[in-house]
Amino acid sequence: MKKNFLGFRVGILGGGQLARMLALKAHEMGLVPHVLSPFQGDPAAQVSQNWMKGDPLDPQDLNEFFKKVDIVTFESEFLDSHLLEKIGAAMKVPIEPKAGLMAQLQDRWTQKQLLKSHGVATLPFYKIDAFSDAERAFEEHASGVVFKKRRFGYDGYGTYIVKTARDLNQFLPFFNTFKEIGFIAEPFADFRRELAISVAKNKNGDFCFLPLVETFQQDSRCLWTKGPVSETRLGSLKMQIKSMLKKMDYNGIIAFELFETSKGVLVNEIAPRVHNSAHYSLNGLIDDQFTLHLRAILNLPLHKAQLVKPGFAMWNLLGTSSKTPQIIPPDEVYMHWYGKAENRKGRKMGHINAVASTPDRALNLVKKAGKLIKL
Amino acid sequence: MKKNFLGFRVGILGGGQLARMLALKAHEMGLVPHVLSPFQGDPAAQVSQNWMKGDPLDPQDLNEFFKKVDIVTFESEFLDSHLLEKIGAAMKVPIEPKAGLMAQLQDRWTQKQLLKSHGVATLPFYKIDAFSDAERAFEEHASGVVFKKRRFGYDGYGTYIVKTARDLNQFLPFFNTFKEIGFIAEPFADFRRELAISVAKNKNGDFCFLPLVETFQQDSRCLWTKGPVSETRLGSLKMQIKSMLKKMDYNGIIAFELFETSKGVLVNEIAPRVHNSAHYSLNGLIDDQFTLHLRAILNLPLHKAQLVKPGFAMWNLLGTSSKTPQIIPPDEVYMHWYGKAENRKGRKMGHINAVASTPDRALNLVKKAGKLIKL
Repeated sequence: MKKNFLGFRVGILGGGQLARMLALKAHEMGLVPHVLSPFQGDPAAQVSQNWMKGDPLDPQDLNEFFKKVDIVTFESEFLDSHLLEKIGAAMKVPIEPKAGLMAQLQDRWTQKQLLKSHGVATLPFYKIDAFSDAERAFEEHASGVVFKKRRFGYDGYGTYIVKTARDLNQFLPFFNTFKEIGFIAEPFADFRRELAISVAKNKNGDFCFLPLVETFQQDSRCLWTKGPVSETRLGSLKMQIKSMLKKMDYNGIIAFELFETSKGVLVNEIAPRVHNSAHYSLNGLIDDQFTLHLRAILNLPLHKAQLVKPGFAMWNLLGTSSKTPQIIPPDEVYMHWYGKAENRKGRKMGHINAVASTPDRALNLVKKAGKLIKL
Repeated sequence: MKKNFLGFRVGILGGGQLARMLALKAHEMGLVPHVLSPFQGDPAAQVSQNWMKGDPLDPQDLNEFFKKVDIVTFESEFLDSHLLEKIGAAMKVPIEPKAGLMAQLQDRWTQKQLLKSHGVATLPFYKIDAFSDAERAFEEHASGVVFKKRRFGYDGYGTYIVKTARDLNQFLPFFNTFKEIGFIAEPFADFRRELAISVAKNKNGDFCFLPLVETFQQDSRCLWTKGPVSETRLGSLKMQIKSMLKKMDYNGIIAFELFETSKGVLVNEIAPRVHNSAHYSLNGLIDDQFTLHLRAILNLPLHKAQLVKPGFAMWNLLGTSSKTPQIIPPDEVYMHWYGKAENRKGRKMGHINAVASTPDRALNLVKKAGKLIKL
């Protein structure tokens, strides 16, 4: 890798809001973001001169794109990791986080095995290959079972909760539709609240843990986050995560979605990328998650995360209709709009951030501003 | 103007760092920035899909550009205001701040007359049409005279200080070179320190004064700013500025460079645009000057400026050679790099911001980080 990071060409696979915010922060740092996405109107395509029309799953498009850049990263882990690995090696362009790790983490079965093998606390899990496996899992956990598609799940899509025999019957057609992808099952988690933590790691072994946050979901979609949350109940989780990432040779940021249960904090899911639960960091920390991810993949030094104020919060601006939004942007909180061409029920259209003297005060600020925005 | 600001196409004339930061903030707000500038590598051209190659002084390029946008603003007041006025009217595209005001403010003679006519405290001034006018001004102010080109001056370029008869002789060739543009003269100001204040105003008459800041110049270029500075010595200056901007029907942000003298605070110069002295606002205020300018020209509500922390500071990253910079970007302060293709002595290549519990603590943070960056 070139020593001089200024002008370094960072290829971003995907054109959604995560890619957009990566590109915006790349500009501020002095990097040159390149975006590969299908449509010129994609959120990330709008914010860089170096957009290439193409599909991050298409070998020819990827070949073309890899010629233009010095390093490649991604906004979604649901890509063809073997293809990426092959092209990256052939073109001598590093991919961070590594494509092999993407493969391991994009599949909930191998992801859970990974957690288990590194002693990271997580819910028990079962591989569901046949519907009889689903029946057996439900028999063992009468209080309820959650079935999750092994791949391509997000925001509650691909998750099916079974609490009664009737639910199980209704799960059958869903199971049959996605049999090819496969499922895992977990006992239904009786959690007090959902938490999340992100951490950036570089090749040199520097770590930067972002603060622990509470995340609140409505209809399986994140509505708000606030923090920092006291880390006393985390136990040795951060140590375990560090050890796991070191052994994996993981570089970049990675997000851990957590359940706080009566038995302690468990890892629910991992996302090997920038994540909605850390969007607050754009204004709540000196170094936001996008900057940290870019620093981490370029092996730039990482220091301790610094809070701007004692409390922060984020509110997702979710679509409620397909009408074009008519809104006055707030100016007493921070606005981050994604530039999506179409509004849609439940779609993440933007988010707002606030900082304050406590997490709850920050949450009140974003809630107040967020409720005035009708999408 | 359309009621729905989302997706509103904002045309920015010019492709430098001010245009770049306007475009980046336009993206965050949900606006669609369009940039008109000569080179694809221009700082602002890099950060938007909607860059048009062209010269903001060329009638045909402007005509083409005005077709693409809903409103036009600019990063430099040294444009052809009459041409802009004509094209804006013909194409029914508003220009904010208005081109007529740009004409008045780009010329130091009419700018000073404007200040005088509104009772805004400023240094005495003389119009210098012939060299005999310069001689007369020097006779009247034996302690020294500052000659300033009426137009196209910035960062000390176009300013000539005359303290001795010998200086006056040396001024003659400079005077002759720029006789067409003309000069004004002011007595040499014996100031304690330089200050600056920016204010945004919209059509509805909302005002948002940014905090008063101290600016420190080295070799006639701003090296750092810090603030907020106590406003007790401003007297009625803010009232006078408000009244002046109201009468002018000025919309947008406007920067006032000030001298703090033993006789009070005087206005040195005005810039009808976003300004280096307010770059701290990207991290020091909830609403930065770029967001405020965009809100102001779109007639969106403006509220009171809110400090993120009690102190803030900015450090300009100035080139010292023509070598390609090899730096590690700091992560304990905020980095804003401009993406300029070439380094040059004295060139503004980027800036860094910090916030802290006091202005001096913030200044120490940026100074420490700034001195580690060798450009």
